[in-house]
This record gives sequence, C-alpha cells and structure tokens, in this order.
Amino acid sequence: MTEILRWSARVLLMTFTVLASAPVMAQENPLPSWNEGPAKTAIVDFIERVTNRNGQDWVPPEDRVATFDNDGTLWSEQPIYFQGMFVFDRIKAMAPQHPEWREEQPFKAALEGDLKTLAAGGMASLNKLLMTTHTGMTTDEFAVIVTDWLKTARHPRFQRPYNELTFQPMVELIGYLQQSGFRTYIVSGGGVEFMRTWAEDAYGIPPERVIGSTIKLRYELDNDKPALRRLSEIEFIDDGPGKPVAIGRLIGKRPIFAAGNSDGDLQMLQWTTLASGPRFGLIVHHTDGEREWEYDRQSMVGKLDKALDEAPRRGWTVVDMKKDWRTVYFLQ
Amino acid sequence: MTEILRWSARVLLMTFTVLASAPVMAQENPLPSWNEGPAKTAIVDFIERVTNRNGQDWVPPEDRVATFDNDGTLWSEQPIYFQGMFVFDRIKAMAPQHPEWREEQPFKAALEGDLKTLAAGGMASLNKLLMTTHTGMTTDEFAVIVTDWLKTARHPRFQRPYNELTFQPMVELIGYLQQSGFRTYIVSGGGVEFMRTWAEDAYGIPPERVIGSTIKLRYELDNDKPALRRLSEIEFIDDGPGKPVAIGRLIGKRPIFAAGNSDGDLQMLQWTTLASGPRFGLIVHHTDGEREWEYDRQSMVGKLDKALDEAPRRGWTVVDMKKDWRTVYFLQ
Repeated sequence: MTEILRWSARVLLMTFTVLASAPVMAQENPLPSWNEGPAKTAIVDFIERVTNRNGQDWVPPEDRVATFDNDGTLWSEQPIYFQGMFVFDRIKAMAPQHPEWREEQPFKAALEGDLKTLAAGGMASLNKLLMTTHTGMTTDEFAVIVTDWLKTARHPRFQRPYNELTFQPMVELIGYLQQSGFRTYIVSGGGVEFMRTWAEDAYGIPPERVIGSTIKLRYELDNDKPALRRLSEIEFIDDGPGKPVAIGRLIGKRPIFAAGNSDGDLQMLQWTTLASGPRFGLIVHHTDGEREWEYDRQSMVGKLDKALDEAPRRGWTVVDMKKDWRTVYFLQ
Repeated sequence: MTEILRWSARVLLMTFTVLASAPVMAQENPLPSWNEGPAKTAIVDFIERVTNRNGQDWVPPEDRVATFDNDGTLWSEQPIYFQGMFVFDRIKAMAPQHPEWREEQPFKAALEGDLKTLAAGGMASLNKLLMTTHTGMTTDEFAVIVTDWLKTARHPRFQRPYNELTFQPMVELIGYLQQSGFRTYIVSGGGVEFMRTWAEDAYGIPPERVIGSTIKLRYELDNDKPALRRLSEIEFIDDGPGKPVAIGRLIGKRPIFAAGNSDGDLQMLQWTTLASGPRFGLIVHHTDGEREWEYDRQSMVGKLDKALDEAPRRGWTVVDMKKDWRTVYFLQ
C-alpha cells in the first residue's frame, strides 16, 4: 500500500508542478523536471508529431511502443548495479546459516568486502554469488526476499532506499508517453523477477511489460500446491544484441522510441531507429558528478563509448544530465 | 485491411446477435453462440462475481489475467495441427527450387504425402521439415510467408481458409472477458511468430499477448538495415509444464482464468486454479463429429486423458462442444 501511495504522490507532485509552472495550459509542460533545451524540445516535438491525427507523421496507437533500459537510464547504477548490491547484502544476511563461508571463497571475500580477491576470481566467482542468492527458491519466495531487502537496504552514498534513486525526469517521460497512447516497456539486463517487484510502483510499468535477463524455471506440483522453482542456470542475458531479440520475441512489434545509457543499448537503439517513419533514440549521458555521477567511455559499469560515437550519425538525442535535468531524483 | 474488416464484421455480427436475442438488456447475453446450460452459467457467474465491486469475490482489474491455449481450444486442430499443414504446403511451394528433394527424404515423402515413411522417420524427419520451412529467413520475411499462405491455403475438409476455422463461442468468450477488464493471452505450443500474423484479426489478441514456442533469433545489422534472423534451433517448447513457466516468465502474474483442450494444458490449468480466491478452469471437449471432430483419450493430436480425469476433482468446467455450442465456426 505504501508503494501505491508513493506512486500516487509522485504523480500528484508532477501534476502540481505542471499546474504551477503553466497555470493556463497544463499540458504545455508535461516534463517539469526537464530544463528547456534541445533534448526536451526534441522529445516534445516527436510525441506531438506521432500523436497528431492530421499530420503526416501520425502513428496509430497500436504501433506506439517505447522501450527503456533500466540501470543508468531509469535509476542510478553506481558504485555498481543495484542488483549487485542486493547480492552482497544477501550474502551477509545468509552468512549466519553458512558458517563455512568464513573460510570459503568467493563468500569470504564477499563478506569482507575484499574486491581484489573477488575480481581475481572473475566471472566464475560472481556467478557463484549470483546463483547462491538468486536461485533455489520459488518465484513467490524470491519476490518476498527482494521486497524485504528494498525496505531496509540503503544506498551507501545517499543513505536512501534504492528505489528512491529513480530519475524523476524519466518517470515523467514514461508518464507522458503513456498519456500519449504509448505502451512503455523496460528492456534491461537486470533480472526480470528482481525488477518486477518494484517497477510498477517506481515507474508505473506493470509486470508483463518488464523484460529482463532470466534464469530457468521449473514447474512443480507438491501436495496440490503448484510452484515455479528458480533453477541454477541462466536462460537468457537481455543485453546488447539480446535486447532486439527479446523485443522481437516478447513484444513482436518494433518500438518507435527507445532510451538507454550504455553500449549495452546500442543494438536496441539501432533496431528502433533504423527504419522508416518517425523514430526516436535517446541516450542518458551521466555528466553530473555532483547530483549523480559523471562517467562514460572508461566506466566499468554502464560504459558508453560506441553508442556515444554513433549518436550524431543516427540522430539520437543525447541527454546531458547536468544541463537538461532540473531535478535528478524524486523528493531531492 | 481486409483483416480489420473481417474482425469488425465479427464484432458487429456478435453485437447484432446479442441485440436480437435480448432486445431489452444487451448485456444479458454476452455469449450468444453458447446454448443455455451448466458451462455457460458457470462462465457468466464467474465473470459477474469477479467484476462485482461490492461482492467478496471481486478481483482488482490488474489481477484479471486469462490464458487460452490455441490449437483445439480457439480453432480446430484436425486432421493435424494447422501449422503442420503449413509445413507440407511450404515444402510443396519450395520444391521447384529444390529438384534434389524428389529423391531426398524426408522431402520426397512429404511431397508424395507418404505418411508411413514420414512416421518411420520419427521426430528427426519432422524436425527437418520444420526447420526447412521455418528458419533461415528474417522475422519480417516469415510473417509475409505465413500471411500469404493463409490467403490461399484451404482446409482439406471444409475448403475454407484456416483462420475461418476459429471457434465463434471462444471468440465471444475472449471479447466478454476483455469487456470485463481482463487481459487475455494466448499460451500455445504453436510457434509464436506463426500465430502473431493472424491472432489479432481472429481473436482481438495483439502480438505482445501471444505466447508460444520459439526458435532462436539472431540480431543482424547489414548496411544499416537491422534484422532478426530465425536460426535452426528450437529455443523453447511452450507445452505441458512449459506453459506455467512461460506464464511466469512473460506475464509475471498468475492467471485466474485458463482454457485448454488437451493434456498439454494440464499444468496451466493447475497453475491457474490451485490457489486461493476465485479461479476458473475450462476444457473444450471435442464431442461433435458432425460439425467439427470427436476425439479425446486416443487421439494423436490434442490427446485429452489425464486432464479429463482431473477435471471433476479440480472443479474445471468441461465444455461439451455438441451440447454447449449453438455455433462452432463463424459464418457457418
């Protein structure tokens, strides 16, 4: 219920801000957390064109599909992906039931925050931590674990719950697209069941419109109680060229609007924009070291290099977080 | 455009039938092609209960999810699955470009209608025919192939296009659920991209609500033209225990209504109904050898055995096609 209330508060605040800043025509400023500038102008112009029934760029509602990356596009992703923070928090929470971890790698390193040893262990170490914290339970049990974690976990820099580190300008953009007849999807490298527990509250995107990486599930019937068990096997990584594949398989329509922030979104941006008719590609560029973080080509997390080079040639809109966003987080 | 017109005609005819049969209260008969009887009564009672805001069985709209099998549940599946007919028609259409098939199995048998040789070849033969006709092309190209096939192919018994052999009572049921705030999904063993080309026209179910078996896709970028290539590898079979797995992965909510017709739907019916709150399981029983087909426990296609035994114990509604359906096909 608090989730719903928080979402309502967001929408209300957004409405009031709109009304306050444009008392005559409320619809004149559907993106109050965006500063005036080329990014905002391009977005508003695009949405007005595709929804103008009498214009030549009109797109019928059934073809208005918009896809959003999540980490770094809709919420922050530093110092590491928040799902990675979940992994470390879970290892600590599970440690009392596993005294052997005090001497067993990679658990020992994870418990001691020994990143050097972890890095030396490579993907095998990370995969072991991931499987230990993400599999074995049913889908219902996992949802409870994530929900409970979100209630108590705090981001190390901001000391706030992770789901309060969502970007207010992007939440407004999702709402604006929805009000303009778009079906808005998340298409993220994050785990689909991790995101579904909080995405509807945070963004107004329901579970069936959350697409992500998946682990294998097994159907079980025990004493007339059916369950879906999360198995220790990765099924699909929804990143890079996997994003258009997931879009094709799950949505079955080509988006006309896509937003991302890293090279993992490059193919989704290409798939969305390299076609006829009105198309929009958006890249969130992390330029604000003060209010958020400043990184791109050299970052370990959310590396933005090839897509940044390709943006001008493709006509993608690069959002300069520092200049273009009046507000970064909600309730800042 | 003809597709849209045909769908409109269906809806209009349905509306007129409703108006004609219940001139005072149009909503009094939302299922005009269903005869009065226990099946229709159970369906109407369930939908009225879950949509009654003041009743104790009210279900909020976000939880109103309904899933339908396709083959044998929404359209016929005899003498073999219609997608199987598509395979044989495609082999014939492709044969002029493959003179070597005249001597090469399983193509020779497929071209000569030699079912005995095909059966002797087992799954390997069928898989070869499937891959030959379903893979190698892009998703866009495949959609054109299926659409063109539907325009010209005729069912051997009825001499009508396959997409006219959809069940009018089930189309009405889908519409009734949608009008009652349900999100209706297809969850079928058939290929997802095969179904998506015609499902919206036939049932009013858009591409993103069609779930089916999938083959692997690969993203390609050639001369700035992106495409999704269909590879010769099956990715997922959406049948039996695979159905609840696909529902969990793609919808992320447990349905409260499910309809099927064979043992391939058993686990989906369990997953839907073995939980608290109002739940509905429906089985279409093929009992009408005259208007459609009569088969269940012994059938090679759409075998209904275990699910038929389990139905009374679970409280599932078994629809007797002969008794319960006034009309089978549209425009019969």
